[in-house]
Amino acid sequence: MWVCIIIGSDSDAEVMTQACAALDEMGVAYEMKVASAHRSPERTKQVIMDAERDGAGVFIAGAGMAAHLPGVVASFTTKPVIGVPLAGGALQGIDALFAVVQMPPGIPVATVAVGGARNAGILAAQIIALTDESLAARLREQRVSMAEAVAQKSKKVERSTRQ
Amino acid sequence: MWVCIIIGSDSDAEVMTQACAALDEMGVAYEMKVASAHRSPERTKQVIMDAERDGAGVFIAGAGMAAHLPGVVASFTTKPVIGVPLAGGALQGIDALFAVVQMPPGIPVATVAVGGARNAGILAAQIIALTDESLAARLREQRVSMAEAVAQKSKKVERSTRQ
Amino acid sequence: MWVCIIIGSDSDAEVMTQACAALDEMGVAYEMKVASAHRSPERTKQVIMDAERDGAGVFIAGAGMAAHLPGVVASFTTKPVIGVPLAGGALQGIDALFAVVQMPPGIPVATVAVGGARNAGILAAQIIALTDESLAARLREQRVSMAEAVAQKSKKVERSTRQ
Amino acid sequence: MWVCIIIGSDSDAEVMTQACAALDEMGVAYEMKVASAHRSPERTKQVIMDAERDGAGVFIAGAGMAAHLPGVVASFTTKPVIGVPLAGGALQGIDALFAVVQMPPGIPVATVAVGGARNAGILAAQIIALTDESLAARLREQRVSMAEAVAQKSKKVERSTRQ
Amino acid sequence: MWVCIIIGSDSDAEVMTQACAALDEMGVAYEMKVASAHRSPERTKQVIMDAERDGAGVFIAGAGMAAHLPGVVASFTTKPVIGVPLAGGALQGIDALFAVVQMPPGIPVATVAVGGARNAGILAAQIIALTDESLAARLREQRVSMAEAVAQKSKKVERSTRQ
Amino acid sequence: MWVCIIIGSDSDAEVMTQACAALDEMGVAYEMKVASAHRSPERTKQVIMDAERDGAGVFIAGAGMAAHLPGVVASFTTKPVIGVPLAGGALQGIDALFAVVQMPPGIPVATVAVGGARNAGILAAQIIALTDESLAARLREQRVSMAEAVAQKSKKVERSTRQ
Amino acid sequence: MWVCIIIGSDSDAEVMTQACAALDEMGVAYEMKVASAHRSPERTKQVIMDAERDGAGVFIAGAGMAAHLPGVVASFTTKPVIGVPLAGGALQGIDALFAVVQMPPGIPVATVAVGGARNAGILAAQIIALTDESLAARLREQRVSMAEAVAQKSKKVERSTRQ
Amino acid sequence: MWVCIIIGSDSDAEVMTQACAALDEMGVAYEMKVASAHRSPERTKQVIMDAERDGAGVFIAGAGMAAHLPGVVASFTTKPVIGVPLAGGALQGIDALFAVVQMPPGIPVATVAVGGARNAGILAAQIIALTDESLAARLREQRVSMAEAVAQKSKKVERSTRQ
Repeated sequence: MWVCIIIGSDSDAEVMTQACAALDEMGVAYEMKVASAHRSPERTKQVIMDAERDGAGVFIAGAGMAAHLPGVVASFTTKPVIGVPLAGGALQGIDALFAVVQMPPGIPVATVAVGGARNAGILAAQIIALTDESLAARLREQRVSMAEAVAQKSKKVERSTRQ
Repeated sequence: MWVCIIIGSDSDAEVMTQACAALDEMGVAYEMKVASAHRSPERTKQVIMDAERDGAGVFIAGAGMAAHLPGVVASFTTKPVIGVPLAGGALQGIDALFAVVQMPPGIPVATVAVGGARNAGILAAQIIALTDESLAARLREQRVSMAEAVAQKSKKVERSTRQ
Repeated sequence: MWVCIIIGSDSDAEVMTQACAALDEMGVAYEMKVASAHRSPERTKQVIMDAERDGAGVFIAGAGMAAHLPGVVASFTTKPVIGVPLAGGALQGIDALFAVVQMPPGIPVATVAVGGARNAGILAAQIIALTDESLAARLREQRVSMAEAVAQKSKKVERSTRQ
Repeated sequence: MWVCIIIGSDSDAEVMTQACAALDEMGVAYEMKVASAHRSPERTKQVIMDAERDGAGVFIAGAGMAAHLPGVVASFTTKPVIGVPLAGGALQGIDALFAVVQMPPGIPVATVAVGGARNAGILAAQIIALTDESLAARLREQRVSMAEAVAQKSKKVERSTRQ
Repeated sequence: MWVCIIIGSDSDAEVMTQACAALDEMGVAYEMKVASAHRSPERTKQVIMDAERDGAGVFIAGAGMAAHLPGVVASFTTKPVIGVPLAGGALQGIDALFAVVQMPPGIPVATVAVGGARNAGILAAQIIALTDESLAARLREQRVSMAEAVAQKSKKVERSTRQ
Repeated sequence: MWVCIIIGSDSDAEVMTQACAALDEMGVAYEMKVASAHRSPERTKQVIMDAERDGAGVFIAGAGMAAHLPGVVASFTTKPVIGVPLAGGALQGIDALFAVVQMPPGIPVATVAVGGARNAGILAAQIIALTDESLAARLREQRVSMAEAVAQKSKKVERSTRQ
Repeated sequence: MWVCIIIGSDSDAEVMTQACAALDEMGVAYEMKVASAHRSPERTKQVIMDAERDGAGVFIAGAGMAAHLPGVVASFTTKPVIGVPLAGGALQGIDALFAVVQMPPGIPVATVAVGGARNAGILAAQIIALTDESLAARLREQRVSMAEAVAQKSKKVERSTRQ
Repeated sequence: MWVCIIIGSDSDAEVMTQACAALDEMGVAYEMKVASAHRSPERTKQVIMDAERDGAGVFIAGAGMAAHLPGVVASFTTKPVIGVPLAGGALQGIDALFAVVQMPPGIPVATVAVGGARNAGILAAQIIALTDESLAARLREQRVSMAEAVAQKSKKVERSTRQ
């Protein structure tokens, strides 16, 4: 099972590769393509149909401003769709957040933080790990590493004036 | 030339009929249908294609929450698309406003106020009036009537303590 | 595989049972309990640990105001966690939305709309359907039904003045 | 038929020339002038009156902060008025967006995104294209080009780890 | 010297009469009329010109949504203009607040709270009191009364469990 | 040591008595008075001075709209000041929240949630409990009760379809 | 009659000197001092009392964040008080705007735009001009100059492709 | 009695050392550690338990985005907890503010301004000063110094054109 990552514009590629990085760390296969909900609606549908036919199990879609892409992806598949609202433009991502998360009943989009591409990758891995115990183990190890890193980083900035 | 009005849910029909009323007053033909960008993407595309083939000149689309419908309509036609963000849900229409108006470069949606269905109808009439001088005249008369109504209404609430 | 639904307060039960209803329609097993991130942190951890031990595959957590519950659930499991921000209090859910969706890198919460409990249920079913083809089929049928319902509802409110 | 572009301040000229560029690409004639709704109300009215007398078919007005210019233009004409809210000042354009889009019933302003001058130009072209089939064809071609550009740009950033 | 109160719609009369009440209490003369910035721009200008010719010293203008009226009044006079943003519509007055207060350099509007018609009346009286010592004395007495009322009201709700 | 509760208006008394209730439960003495930062600045200062002289250890101040009262109290004492922003008016408490919490460096106000009077009472008790072990014990017992109540309430709404 | 300008911090001096500049242009006398509502409440009151005794007719107060200064000034005088919310801090001035403009009934603050110090100066001049005909004439001339400047600036950026 | 400062990430250390500086000035002992509510929940609980056992009297917790740390600290102690919402990410701290301050009834967090680490330190000192008269005296002296500094700084920027 692999993850299909769709981004609304090539200018979103830099942020969205954080999702790729998270999937690489977990050893989850993925494919990332550009398809605009507004400028190329036919291509967008085709990318989704092709991905579903070729075994994609989870979709990640990232877009900014009136970010319709995640919702449009969700309208063409019943696979889980993860939406990443992206900052950009005058309203700095709050427009994208509302446009991604406030989906009407029936068609959910699993929304992460504004710019939260890395978490989109981790969430996709968590979903796939339900049927992949070795991946699940890697996720648990990653969590342990994160906790250890917190303790390590704390050492660098700890201060005490207690006697 | 007629106006194709698409609404995302039958629960939006009541507000959106204010657009119909405005068009009726101006003698502009229209058709109103329900088509959801998310729950029925194929139908939405079909309604747009059929309308364009049958001579629709302007589209009006109204939706609430993550209101993708106007943008989706705009992605399938190069005719002018008027978007009506609708209040509803916890965020009371600010989500719909951002999701309708913040379209990316290339695919505009002519957005009116939250709940501004009547103005959507008038704007559609203004667009069609560019090639219909009698409609243009009716719009100018309507404007004169509005100004007179202001003066009439003023009389009811005017107060003065000047000597 | 079943879904563990945790709500921050019994006053949230009414909205959150929409998630139960969605799961019932799909034939997905679930358990719903109250556990407050702030008033009963030990119980919250215990409910999560017990659920994970007993085979829960997906968590849904709903809370209002400074809605920490979904994030706290996510801190104790690497299973997918779906967060439902709930309206309530003076800020009407925007506080809950930010507190649920803006998770830092490393610990994702799959956030749905403010009050979007039904979509949380559907999303959980979509995730489980990745390994349950009959469930996947039911989700596809539900989607077809939704599209048909749009066409049916359209008939009730359609209007036309075209000749 | 030509487009009258009015900007509230010469400091807005740079952003607003994106509307000019869009019209140049489509071969639509236009004229751009500065007229402040607040500092030069008489001039503003005169520019509108002159433009209407000389055959302007669509107005585009851009302004920032308490952006009254589009609404003031709309108060003096029944031609379609496109409003462009501009970022600037501490509130970064949300003030301009509300001041442009939230017009009361009777006097619509077709609002585009904050800073969306390019889309204002395209929307004006779409309106004029209703009576100019060769312009309509150019708009359709532009849309095809946009879709092709998406596919081209995708190639540059596509990544795949599928086997 | 009298106060010219202009309201954008007769539906705003009820709230705006709180300004009249405040002026009545202070014995300041006023006149209240309806004039819409958008539906009756000529009338609006005429009301302002007439008022200025007839000795109005201060203007109060109240409007909702894209509340341009106070700014439009300020564009036609150099007398002080007090703006009252009014709640109404989906955005509940925040749109009106931004549209009234965020005036560009050169043309100020003295803005009071959303719905703050009473304070608009008091502010007008404070301005006129600069050249009317008996009015100034009444304002100071009103302030003393307000302070006494606070002490009186405190008695009704005071609670103590101190021993 | 007792708690001095100051409210900006008698209309705020109902909400603010939730602070009294919390203090009653904990057996902490308090006094509640009305004093407006704007309408009775002298009285406000006097109430603070008197309270400090008479041994008040913590202040709680609640106010709505441009809620200056907590900050004004903090400007006259170096005792801890707890601020309660209150909903009311068109902006529903977000104005009060910003006006209470965004204090400049040097003069803190310990802010609780909009309408969070009960938490203000509990916070005051927590502060006083630092030197009152029996009060500290009561707070710990209250916390245990809260956790038990969560478990009790869970029983009423728990649902399970697990086999 | 002169204008008393009070700023909450010396770091606000740069922005607030735009009010001085506006008053200098109009030949209106003023005095600018720093007095913090929170860090120096006694000094603030003293500055206001001294100013009123020495003939100040209008107050201008500028502050950022929880900007209480204008409201505190208004609590100590019945002269007109103009408030300037200043950007600064994470919330970029929206906090200051709400804290300045949302004054409760009885104590108005004439609020200008965020950072609108220049308009505060002009508004003060407009108020004083009610009893100073030569100042009133200068204000009218300034308005004429502003309108002419708009026409001049337009020439620099005008573009036309009309034939 | 000492203050336990917990920060959610080492990247928050720079801002949060302003709390340390304020405590250093007052001679209050403290200890600062990193513990993430989400990445290291066990460590977070341990740090709190250890601190409480070792005599910490007040907790300060700072975090950004969905800032759960202060609320999580408050869930494990009945000592006063001061929360510092930190700017960062696309929403610039408004997300952190809501996530920190909007705590549900029963578990208060004493919230200071976005980025207000210095005030968190002062507030902690004010709380401890209730049982430390020499600390209380230092706080009063600091307040006097602040007031004097205002007067000194005023001298640098004062301007007057009064004769």
